[in-house]
Amino acid sequence: MSARYALGIDFGTESGRAVLVDCADGSEVAASVYPYANGVIDERLPDSGVELEPEWALQDPADYVRTLQHAVPEVLAGIPPEDVVGVGIDFTSCTMLPTTADGTPLCDIPELCASPHAWVKLWKHHAAQPEADEINAVAARRGERWIARYGGKISSEWFFPKSLQILREDPGVYARAERLIEAADWIVWQLTGVESRNNTTAGYKAIWSKADGFPPTEYFAALDEGFAQVVDEKMSRRIDSIGGRAGGIDERAAAWTGLRPGTPVAIANVDAHVSAPAVGGIEPGTLTVIMGTSNCHILLGDRLAEVEGMCGVVEDGVVPGLFGYEAGQSAVGDIFAWFVENCVPPQTHELARTHGVDVHHLLEEQAAALAVAENGLLALDWWNGNRSVLVDAGLSGLVVGLSLSTRPQDVYRALLEATAFGTRVIVESFERAGVPVDRIVACGGLPQRNRLLMQIYAGVLGRPVEVAGSEQAPALGSAMFGAVAGGAHESIREASQGMAPPIAETYLPDPASRPAYDALFAEYVRLHDHFGRGADDVMKTLKRLRDEAERAIPRLAPA
Amino acid sequence: MSARYALGIDFGTESGRAVLVDCADGSEVAASVYPYANGVIDERLPDSGVELEPEWALQDPADYVRTLQHAVPEVLAGIPPEDVVGVGIDFTSCTMLPTTADGTPLCDIPELCASPHAWVKLWKHHAAQPEADEINAVAARRGERWIARYGGKISSEWFFPKSLQILREDPGVYARAERLIEAADWIVWQLTGVESRNNTTAGYKAIWSKADGFPPTEYFAALDEGFAQVVDEKMSRRIDSIGGRAGGIDERAAAWTGLRPGTPVAIANVDAHVSAPAVGGIEPGTLTVIMGTSNCHILLGDRLAEVEGMCGVVEDGVVPGLFGYEAGQSAVGDIFAWFVENCVPPQTHELARTHGVDVHHLLEEQAAALAVAENGLLALDWWNGNRSVLVDAGLSGLVVGLSLSTRPQDVYRALLEATAFGTRVIVESFERAGVPVDRIVACGGLPQRNRLLMQIYAGVLGRPVEVAGSEQAPALGSAMFGAVAGGAHESIREASQGMAPPIAETYLPDPASRPAYDALFAEYVRLHDHFGRGADDVMKTLKRLRDEAERAIPRLAPA
Repeated sequence: MSARYALGIDFGTESGRAVLVDCADGSEVAASVYPYANGVIDERLPDSGVELEPEWALQDPADYVRTLQHAVPEVLAGIPPEDVVGVGIDFTSCTMLPTTADGTPLCDIPELCASPHAWVKLWKHHAAQPEADEINAVAARRGERWIARYGGKISSEWFFPKSLQILREDPGVYARAERLIEAADWIVWQLTGVESRNNTTAGYKAIWSKADGFPPTEYFAALDEGFAQVVDEKMSRRIDSIGGRAGGIDERAAAWTGLRPGTPVAIANVDAHVSAPAVGGIEPGTLTVIMGTSNCHILLGDRLAEVEGMCGVVEDGVVPGLFGYEAGQSAVGDIFAWFVENCVPPQTHELARTHGVDVHHLLEEQAAALAVAENGLLALDWWNGNRSVLVDAGLSGLVVGLSLSTRPQDVYRALLEATAFGTRVIVESFERAGVPVDRIVACGGLPQRNRLLMQIYAGVLGRPVEVAGSEQAPALGSAMFGAVAGGAHESIREASQGMAPPIAETYLPDPASRPAYDALFAEYVRLHDHFGRGADDVMKTLKRLRDEAERAIPRLAPA
Repeated sequence: MSARYALGIDFGTESGRAVLVDCADGSEVAASVYPYANGVIDERLPDSGVELEPEWALQDPADYVRTLQHAVPEVLAGIPPEDVVGVGIDFTSCTMLPTTADGTPLCDIPELCASPHAWVKLWKHHAAQPEADEINAVAARRGERWIARYGGKISSEWFFPKSLQILREDPGVYARAERLIEAADWIVWQLTGVESRNNTTAGYKAIWSKADGFPPTEYFAALDEGFAQVVDEKMSRRIDSIGGRAGGIDERAAAWTGLRPGTPVAIANVDAHVSAPAVGGIEPGTLTVIMGTSNCHILLGDRLAEVEGMCGVVEDGVVPGLFGYEAGQSAVGDIFAWFVENCVPPQTHELARTHGVDVHHLLEEQAAALAVAENGLLALDWWNGNRSVLVDAGLSGLVVGLSLSTRPQDVYRALLEATAFGTRVIVESFERAGVPVDRIVACGGLPQRNRLLMQIYAGVLGRPVEVAGSEQAPALGSAMFGAVAGGAHESIREASQGMAPPIAETYLPDPASRPAYDALFAEYVRLHDHFGRGADDVMKTLKRLRDEAERAIPRLAPA
C-alpha cells in the first residue's frame, strides 16, 4: 500500500487545524492552523454590524471553508495526494446552522445576512436557556424516558434549544431553513457533496438513540405546533455511525484542499469524542478529560447507567461496543484567559517581562509557591454557566474569601482549583451512579502548558492524572477515523492501538495536601449545592436584572 | 483677644495632618501632612524584621511624635505663637499601646522592641478575634448589661480584646506594661506631660459609661485571673469629658512644635467623632458618614436605644447633652485602593494615561456609564471583616455574578455599590431600633473625590446625601475642640455653628434607579444574612484553613 498518511482536521472555537499523520504509528508529519477571520461573533454581526444580545455566540461558516482552503494545502505541501489514505474531521458541538436544501448557509443569502439567527450558533451560544427550560419542563410533564440519558436535563447549548430559539425569535429564518445541521456534518457535506448525519452529535446533542431514534412527533408538537415536524422537515432520520465513510472528496473540495478527488472522508465526529482514541482511552473505566477553553469528559462504560448531570450517554458514541458518557465544564481555560486579560495589574506584567516569561507562566510560578488553602479563597467556576452536573447556563462565577491582602496569584490559584473541584464533582457523580473511573487521562491544550494545574487536579482528585502524549489529540483522533475510513486500519480500536503515542507524564497526588483539598472541596460542594440547586437564585436574579437594565438602554442603530 | 487661630491635629492611618484654622469662621489658614515613616506595620517589625502573623496591624509611636515635629512647625510658619488659642487632636481608634508609668512606649525599650505586642496596635489589627469571642461569650454567660450598649458584641478591634491578646500571647510584655492607653490620650500626654483619658474612646472602645463606669472586676477575673485588675493597674477610673482642657503644652512639646508653652490642649478625641461638629452635624437625627479607608457613622439621638451591631452609644460622646451612636464599615476606600492596586489590567492604566486621568477616575467614568445592575454583579464588602452590624472580623469579601464578559469597571462598580449597601444595612438597623435618621452628611476623603460613589449612595439609600464643605473634617473638628479648650468658643455647639463651612453639594437619588437598587439590595441582604449570621461559615473555614496552612510553612528567621 503506497498510501501512508491520514489527514485530521479539527474545527475549534477560534481556529481550524489540519494535521497530517503517519498511519503506521500516528507520528505527526505536518500541521497548520487557520485562525478564523471572524472568530467568535458575540458583539456584532460581520458587515451589517447588527448588535447581538448578551449570551449570544455565533460563527461564520466561511471560516470553516477557509480552513480547508488554507490549512489543508499547507500540510499537504510536498506530499503526493495519493499518499493520503483518508480524511477525518472533528468539530465543536453542538455548533449548528440553518441552510438551504443544497447546503448554502442562510447567512450567505444577502437578504438574511443581517439576521443573527441565520448564522452558525456556536457551542457556547447560551441565549436559548428559555427554550431549554421549556424542553425540559415539557419532557418532565410528558414523562419522556429519554431525558434520563441526558442526566435529567437538556442543556441550552444543544441542538433542539438552539433550533427552537430560531423558530420562536425569527420564524422567517426558521421557515427558510430547509436543513438544520451540525457544523460537523455540514463541513463533511462541503467536502463530499453528500449530506450525512453522524450518530455522535445526534446521540449527544439531538436526543437520538440507536434504540429509540428521536423523540416522538407529539413531543415536538407539545413544544410548538410549528416544531412538530422538525426532524422530518429539516433534519434526517438516517444516522450514520462514526467509524464509517461519508463519501469521497468531490471536485470542488479537491480544488480547495489539494486532496485527490475520491479520497475517503470519515463520518463527522466531535472534538472531545475523537480525543479518547487519540490518547489511547478506549477501555471501560478510562476517563479522558479534554482540557482547553472548556473541559469535556469522555468516560467509557460497559453498561448503561443514569448519571446526574451528564451531557449524554450514547451506545457506540465513542468506540463501537461501549457506552460513551460525556460530561463537561463550560469554561476552564477561558476563565484563566479572562483573568489574565482583565484582572492582572501592570506590576505582574512587568515582573513577567523581567523574568522573560508570559503572564500565565509567572502566575503559575507564584501560585505554585502557595500551600494549599494559603490563599484563603474559594471560587465557583461558573463564569460560563455550569454544564455538568447542574446543566444550567444561568449560573455565574463566585469568589469568596477576598481580603485586602489578596494578590493576583491568590485568585489565579483559586480559579485553577475551582475547575479541579468541578471535575471532582463530575467524577463523583459518575461513580455514585455505578460507572467506575479507573484511570484519568488529560489532553487538550492546557495539560502540557500548565504543570501546576495538573498537580492541582491530581491533588484534588486524589489519584494519578496522566497527560496524553499528543498535544493535538482531536486532530490526531480525526486522522485515526480518516485512516479507518481509508482502510489503513480495520477499526478505531486498532487505529488507536497503533497510532496513539505513549503517555507523556503522570502527576501523582501529594498525600500531604489531601486534608486541605478535601476540606476546601467540602466547602465547594456546599456552595455548589446552595447556589446551584435553587436554595439561592441570586445568580439568576442578577442576570435577569442585567437583562432588564440592558433592554432599558436605548441602542444605537448599527453604523 | 489677639489669639485668633486654633490648631487641629488629625492622626490618621497612613499620616498625621496639622491644620491651622481661624476661630472666627473656621477657614483654613495652613495645612501640612506628615506621612508616617513606618506606616502600617503588617508584615515585619521595623529594625528587628520579626515577621507578623496574618491579621496583625501595628504602628510606630515615633511616627506620631514626628508628626508633631514636622507637620506642626510647618503650619505655624509665620504665625506668632501667641495667636494660637488652643490645640485639639483626634486619632484613629481603638489604636492603643502599652507604656511604662512615664509614658515610654514599650517598643522603645531595646529588649522589647522585637516583641510585636510591645508596639501600637492599630485600629485595624484584627488578630484579637479569639479574645473578642471570649469577651462576648463571658459577657453573655454572666448576663452583663453593658453589652447592649455595643449592639450585643464587642469587636476584636476594641480595647479589651487587644489588651487581653497581649496578656494571653505575651505575658512578659503585659507585665511590663504599667499603662495601657489609647494613642489619642498618649499623644495628649506627650503634648502636656499629663496623662488623661477621654470619655469618647473610654465609652466607645473600652466599655465605660458615665452611669456605670467600667465592667466589674469579677467580669475581668472571669476572663482571666491575671486580667482582673486591668483597669486599676494599667488604666484609670478618672475619665475626662471631651470639650474640656487636658493641660497646656509643656516645654518639650513646645520645642517639638513651635507652640507657646502653656497653650491649652483639649481632651483627646476620635477622628470620626470630631467630624460631626466639623460638618455641622450636631442635631439629633443627623448621620455623619466619615468616608475614607473605612466608613464611620456617627448618629446623634436624644434617647438611649439598643441598636443591633452598632459600635457603641455614649452619652455626651460626640456633643454634650445627646447620645452619640457609632457604627462602622471596616473597609471602604481600602477596597477600592486594593482593587486599583491588584486587579486593574495594563490596558486600563494605558487608557487612563491617554485621557490624562488617574485610574480611579477612569474607572469611575467607565462605571458611571453603566446602568444600575447592568454589570450583573453583586459583592459583599467584607474585605476587612464586618464591623456593623455583624461585628465579625472573621468575615471576608465575596463577588458573585462573574462571567467571561465581566470587565474591570463592572467589578469596580459592584465594589462601590457593596459599600453603599453596607451603609444602608446600618441606617435600617438604626431606624428599626427607633433612632431616626433624618439627614445624611458625608465627609472624609472620598466624597469629594468620587462623584459616582456619592450618586450611588444617594440612590441606594433613596435619600439626599449632603457632602460637607470641609475636606479635612477631622482636623477642623479637632481645631474646634482646641478653640473651645482655649476659650475662643463657649461650647463645641457654638464652635460648630461658627466654624463649620456650608454644605458643598447635595446628591439626590434618581427615582428611576430605585427599583433596580432595591432589587440588588434585597439580594445583598440575603447573602449578608446567609454568610454573616452563621448559616454558612465558609469565610471562617477559609481563614482557619489559611492559618493552618501558614503555620505549617517553615518560617525563615528574620534577617
